[in-house]
Amino acid sequence: MQRPLENIRVLDFTRVLAGPYCTMLLADMGAEVIKIEKPETGDDTRSFGPFQNDESGYFMFLNRGKKSITLDLKTPQAIDAIKELVKQSDVLVENFRPGVMKKLGLDYESLREWNPALIYTSISGFGQYGPYSQRPAYDLVAQAMGGMTSITGHPDKPPTRAGASLGDMSAALYAAYGIMVALFHRQRTGEGQCIDISMMDSIFALLESNVMRYTVDQVVPERIGSRHPISTPFDIYKAKDGYVVIAVANDSLFKRLCTVIRQPELAEDERFYLDPLRTKHEAELKTIIETWLAQYTVAEAVEMINEGGIPCSPILTIQDVCEDEHTKARDMLVDIPHPVTGSVKVPGNPVKLSRTPPIIEKSSPMLGEHTSDILKTLVHQQG
Amino acid sequence: MQRPLENIRVLDFTRVLAGPYCTMLLADMGAEVIKIEKPETGDDTRSFGPFQNDESGYFMFLNRGKKSITLDLKTPQAIDAIKELVKQSDVLVENFRPGVMKKLGLDYESLREWNPALIYTSISGFGQYGPYSQRPAYDLVAQAMGGMTSITGHPDKPPTRAGASLGDMSAALYAAYGIMVALFHRQRTGEGQCIDISMMDSIFALLESNVMRYTVDQVVPERIGSRHPISTPFDIYKAKDGYVVIAVANDSLFKRLCTVIRQPELAEDERFYLDPLRTKHEAELKTIIETWLAQYTVAEAVEMINEGGIPCSPILTIQDVCEDEHTKARDMLVDIPHPVTGSVKVPGNPVKLSRTPPIIEKSSPMLGEHTSDILKTLVHQQG
Repeated sequence: MQRPLENIRVLDFTRVLAGPYCTMLLADMGAEVIKIEKPETGDDTRSFGPFQNDESGYFMFLNRGKKSITLDLKTPQAIDAIKELVKQSDVLVENFRPGVMKKLGLDYESLREWNPALIYTSISGFGQYGPYSQRPAYDLVAQAMGGMTSITGHPDKPPTRAGASLGDMSAALYAAYGIMVALFHRQRTGEGQCIDISMMDSIFALLESNVMRYTVDQVVPERIGSRHPISTPFDIYKAKDGYVVIAVANDSLFKRLCTVIRQPELAEDERFYLDPLRTKHEAELKTIIETWLAQYTVAEAVEMINEGGIPCSPILTIQDVCEDEHTKARDMLVDIPHPVTGSVKVPGNPVKLSRTPPIIEKSSPMLGEHTSDILKTLVHQQG
Repeated sequence: MQRPLENIRVLDFTRVLAGPYCTMLLADMGAEVIKIEKPETGDDTRSFGPFQNDESGYFMFLNRGKKSITLDLKTPQAIDAIKELVKQSDVLVENFRPGVMKKLGLDYESLREWNPALIYTSISGFGQYGPYSQRPAYDLVAQAMGGMTSITGHPDKPPTRAGASLGDMSAALYAAYGIMVALFHRQRTGEGQCIDISMMDSIFALLESNVMRYTVDQVVPERIGSRHPISTPFDIYKAKDGYVVIAVANDSLFKRLCTVIRQPELAEDERFYLDPLRTKHEAELKTIIETWLAQYTVAEAVEMINEGGIPCSPILTIQDVCEDEHTKARDMLVDIPHPVTGSVKVPGNPVKLSRTPPIIEKSSPMLGEHTSDILKTLVHQQG
């Protein structure tokens, strides 16, 4: 089987999260990813926990299947080596602050002269141009500046960061998509180009119809916890030992719910018989539902409500999802061997391609593991 | 200029959000997207607000640049027409509940006989296989079952949905990435395949290192509001008229912050002089910072703190981001003409490709606008 990105070489200058996740998506599909790391310490995440036999779980997850070469980018020899590598590569990805690659003489305008077909990809907090392009990026800042934070959380609490680093992860995903579009274009025309991805743009692009509410109706969406803006009861509710999701999007589902909670009269109640009325009397209905739920565990409640034909689910913890049969059935946790730790369990790839599936089987590299091999086969023989 | 997806034809069976956002990403890059809608009503989102001259802003955003053909999939004539279209298409995308396409005789196994090079893409709540595959999908359920909800929100409040439909949006992004990988593979080998994307998988894949904390250390990450798990002060803080992000990731930045808030002695305080101590005494430090912030507006505080060289930002509302100069400079809001509404402002595309940029210039189609044209040019002439 030919892997989809076989014979595609990626020069990877990325560090920490957004860049490495992007090149991981390429490595999972068979690209040869050469990670360029600084000597002695390498990618900062090599020292991020959690640790397994002193190896970083953070690093092992994001850098599986890549090669590592250490180069001191402040030396002219390193820059010469990189130019040789650029000539023989298809894609370059970097996530330094805008301007750093230029100072090194490694900006797109310089490198395209060495390889006009290169696809040069930059990921940064605010992008390569625009008034904020020089600002430092943290996920918390990207979520706040992109508009996501203002609509996440409960109305009586401060705006809230989504629990994972969506600024990094979404930027990585848009970048991987952009790289594949550029590779496809190059395959048909021979032309290279550069790609500029910003974390703030990426967060804003995830807001979906919230943006339209403002541009069309000048409504500014606010925090409404986990509620549905239009339908009720469609929220997270408290049971005896935790929380459950109940998702009732129309009147007939509501009728069924009233039967399950043994209060069929509610379906005719003048406060609740139509969806807009239920949304108006949302707080009263929530109290009724939570009074019923207080008698049952999450497992009991989810079973009864689902049996009634009403969409309902528990809220899985990270442990729950990791141990879930569905996660296992879909290979969303994968064991990979590692020379130091023996093996490590990492998140799988959700892109299930039937003919050319993502393959996750090689560990992350030890720092500089491939330096001499790469210098010998790709750099010096060209000299 | 050749557009990157020129001459790529996409048969689009998708409805609502995840599927339409995926095919929108393809249309922005120049693919011909033929949206197959049910007669009379079309995609449900045609009746979703907000409305501009009775046209749905929700629909106009997600279906820009696509064509619309109405077909009643319950008639044999429609299925025949679709088979003709399949023979002349490159990609198919659908987001019905698993099993619906098979009942229509339009599953991958059937259609590959008509076009072995077809890239057939399914997006669903839980995927085409696995114990939950038949369950109904809502974004709230996908976020809860994928693990995101359990780590979003404040510890003293219920778990919280992230404010946008991340289950749909991330599934759409992974699907668009997968389609491009498959198109690239097909360009080199001629081989088609099918792709299976699940919203639960996609949410789980966004959790980044939270999963590693469990698989390596058996720690179950919990809700910590907007705080940084290791560094302090790195959170959202209350000022006189709103909230600000302050991101202090090391001791020297903390020293600078102490100068800005005119309490330089705190940098030597035995509770605060090292990052782990600050994290231990997080609540006390938060009170000190918010006491200082209470004197200033968000704008005043952000300016003072930024001038001190400390990463700091406001929390932009959707209105703020839409009106922001950076959003404008990066074309993240785009005006498109529309035959009924005159024009409508929609979110831009964050994938900034230098040679083949996304082009957003055509409106969403009226229901069935291209039916006769497509039947005439693609279906009947083949008959």
